[in-house]
Amino acid sequence: MASTEQPLPDFAALLAQLSAIGSTGDGGVDRVEGSPANGEARRWLVARMQEHGFTVSVDAIGNIFGRIGPKGRAVMTGSHIDSQPKGGRLDGAYGVLASLVAARAVAARGGLKRGLVVVAWTGEEGARFQPSLVGSSVYAGTRALDWTLARRDGDGISVAEALDGIGFRGTDPAPPHPAAYVELHVECASELERKGARLGVFDAWWGAHKLEVEIAGATSHTGPTPMAERRDALAAAAEVIVHLRKIADRARPGTLHTSVGRLEVVPNSPNVVPGRVTMFVELRSASAAIMAKARRSLDLALERACSGLAVSWKVRRDELRPPGRFAPRLRTLARETAGGLGHEPLPLSTIAAHDAMPLATVCPSLVIAVPSREGLCHSPREWTDPADLQLGVDWLTAMLDRLTRG
Amino acid sequence: MASTEQPLPDFAALLAQLSAIGSTGDGGVDRVEGSPANGEARRWLVARMQEHGFTVSVDAIGNIFGRIGPKGRAVMTGSHIDSQPKGGRLDGAYGVLASLVAARAVAARGGLKRGLVVVAWTGEEGARFQPSLVGSSVYAGTRALDWTLARRDGDGISVAEALDGIGFRGTDPAPPHPAAYVELHVECASELERKGARLGVFDAWWGAHKLEVEIAGATSHTGPTPMAERRDALAAAAEVIVHLRKIADRARPGTLHTSVGRLEVVPNSPNVVPGRVTMFVELRSASAAIMAKARRSLDLALERACSGLAVSWKVRRDELRPPGRFAPRLRTLARETAGGLGHEPLPLSTIAAHDAMPLATVCPSLVIAVPSREGLCHSPREWTDPADLQLGVDWLTAMLDRLTRG
Repeated sequence: MASTEQPLPDFAALLAQLSAIGSTGDGGVDRVEGSPANGEARRWLVARMQEHGFTVSVDAIGNIFGRIGPKGRAVMTGSHIDSQPKGGRLDGAYGVLASLVAARAVAARGGLKRGLVVVAWTGEEGARFQPSLVGSSVYAGTRALDWTLARRDGDGISVAEALDGIGFRGTDPAPPHPAAYVELHVECASELERKGARLGVFDAWWGAHKLEVEIAGATSHTGPTPMAERRDALAAAAEVIVHLRKIADRARPGTLHTSVGRLEVVPNSPNVVPGRVTMFVELRSASAAIMAKARRSLDLALERACSGLAVSWKVRRDELRPPGRFAPRLRTLARETAGGLGHEPLPLSTIAAHDAMPLATVCPSLVIAVPSREGLCHSPREWTDPADLQLGVDWLTAMLDRLTRG
Repeated sequence: MASTEQPLPDFAALLAQLSAIGSTGDGGVDRVEGSPANGEARRWLVARMQEHGFTVSVDAIGNIFGRIGPKGRAVMTGSHIDSQPKGGRLDGAYGVLASLVAARAVAARGGLKRGLVVVAWTGEEGARFQPSLVGSSVYAGTRALDWTLARRDGDGISVAEALDGIGFRGTDPAPPHPAAYVELHVECASELERKGARLGVFDAWWGAHKLEVEIAGATSHTGPTPMAERRDALAAAAEVIVHLRKIADRARPGTLHTSVGRLEVVPNSPNVVPGRVTMFVELRSASAAIMAKARRSLDLALERACSGLAVSWKVRRDELRPPGRFAPRLRTLARETAGGLGHEPLPLSTIAAHDAMPLATVCPSLVIAVPSREGLCHSPREWTDPADLQLGVDWLTAMLDRLTRG
């Protein structure tokens, strides 16, 4: 069916359909990259793109591109449809569906000077494959295709095998780098909600230093072993976790975030002194200097805790994503178009990783946002007022309209 | 083959054979209760008992008893052959094999006034089924058979099902409670080694307070979520772990041991603030007052950490084994018989849980010990000088000789 005969897509109806794929029954979704539900969502998206007149291509890392409008250097918009294992239905999916609806509406008005590409990036979440931002990093060239295809999940399955498994290791060439990239997302923080704003523009993105630290002690019996002879890896890890929390709490609010989200304890038996602990540490800030200082503080805390408890430590993985700023021209455009809708968008800077970050290395890029209730993301309780969701779609439509005509 | 025709069993040869069953290839063994290796070790033990003239019975909780000598109230000796998942080859197995060799030697001399029962207790380690001391607690009557059979492991398999699986849920009546119970064990602490003694007598056992504490927070994104809005269950658990270590380090050495050996973190994803943590806490002391004080201190630390981090806590399991003292008559006998071998045994008190503790509620009981290198137990590196192992066997033989003739 030709696109011009098809009625314009309805955002709410599309969201309801996509939310049913991989539904966890509690408002959330499980569409981890490469899972059967992820494959089903991808096939559903390709069908929707095709029925609305987009020309679909799938590249070698599984990114799905839908192109509409004139040839030549296009404007790109999108996000991702993979999710956390117990994720929300809006994180990523909102941006992809909003892009589809907005791009189709702009194309329907005719008279475009630039084409539009709607994209769903592979493996944004990093829940299964690390590092996260799998598809957008390969597209932007910040990571090599072969290296990325060879990353393996906890069960030893590679990105290549996972994409083959759902039939989405594509053979199409990726489209050329665009003239601009705009991504609409729920905020995943509570600043908009707290300040009563309905729209937000990210001026910058935080850097993230992600480390896997292994602490090695020795197993022994929790009963008779004298305290002074224990080499308790968990006791040392606990000191470091307390320290990391402390430096973030002592920093000026909103300048440094620290976390240990994952901890592997070996052998993890109630009456055995833990012999080995692996900590997954994150240090995040908008300031490279604050991140570097936090990293030094982490090293000192590790040194102090480990020497005091006769254990040793080493960094097994060390991945630094520096902070950066989004394109001023797009930020201005976002403010102007929001103004046209009667809103003053709030400037934001605390931000989770988004595909717009690698894109920012190849073209002007921006993330714009609507509120998420209580700032929740990565939770089935993630929720945004439907009126705000629609306002975001309208805003994105206005931005794409200006970008493809100007 | 009748026992009188069979040569006396050789301790070193038996240990070599048993150590090969469930060997982890690094000097250790994995014979967790109810595992295939545990079943194989049990069948091997029954065959050794039978070939050396013991009459074997298996009771409803899987304890294996081998009786030799005259009828009537017997003297009992033994230990356990289950192990930690990565355990040592001596912890438990040493006592069972030494008992077999010693009882056989005493019986061979003839003229016994009391019979001898060698026992291998079910599920001493508590690695798979909690509470530990499964078989000896049921035999002594400190725990009910049906309740104990219904305990389940982490996979939901009950003690009854695990014993059925290896064919060791027996139907024989357990022997009557004995006139005395003596258990030989490696020390699992380093006091003998540090003081250059080769034999030790436990005067008392430490109490143990074992708690499962659940801390409940809320998952959120480790990136944008402001520190003040996080409800990080792991950060709270870490504060408590640090506190528990601190109170033990500050106590007079050898008066209070604390540990968190197992930690369950949910969802345990690198970029999700942990929403729930379960801590397996142990507080151990020879003094009931010190244990009670440590428990109050734990509660205060939980309250402080959890209220500061907007998380909640509750105790899900709370199991208190009070401290106690072994029979003075047996301690005297142990010193006399050690003297006969030219040794002065060292009085010891820090002790892990042993099957002799529930036995002490029904008959005079004692644990005697030989050194373990670096105090290691629950480790494949567990090791004792073979000469010390043999000295322990000779000592146990001398004690059983006196107890069955006196």
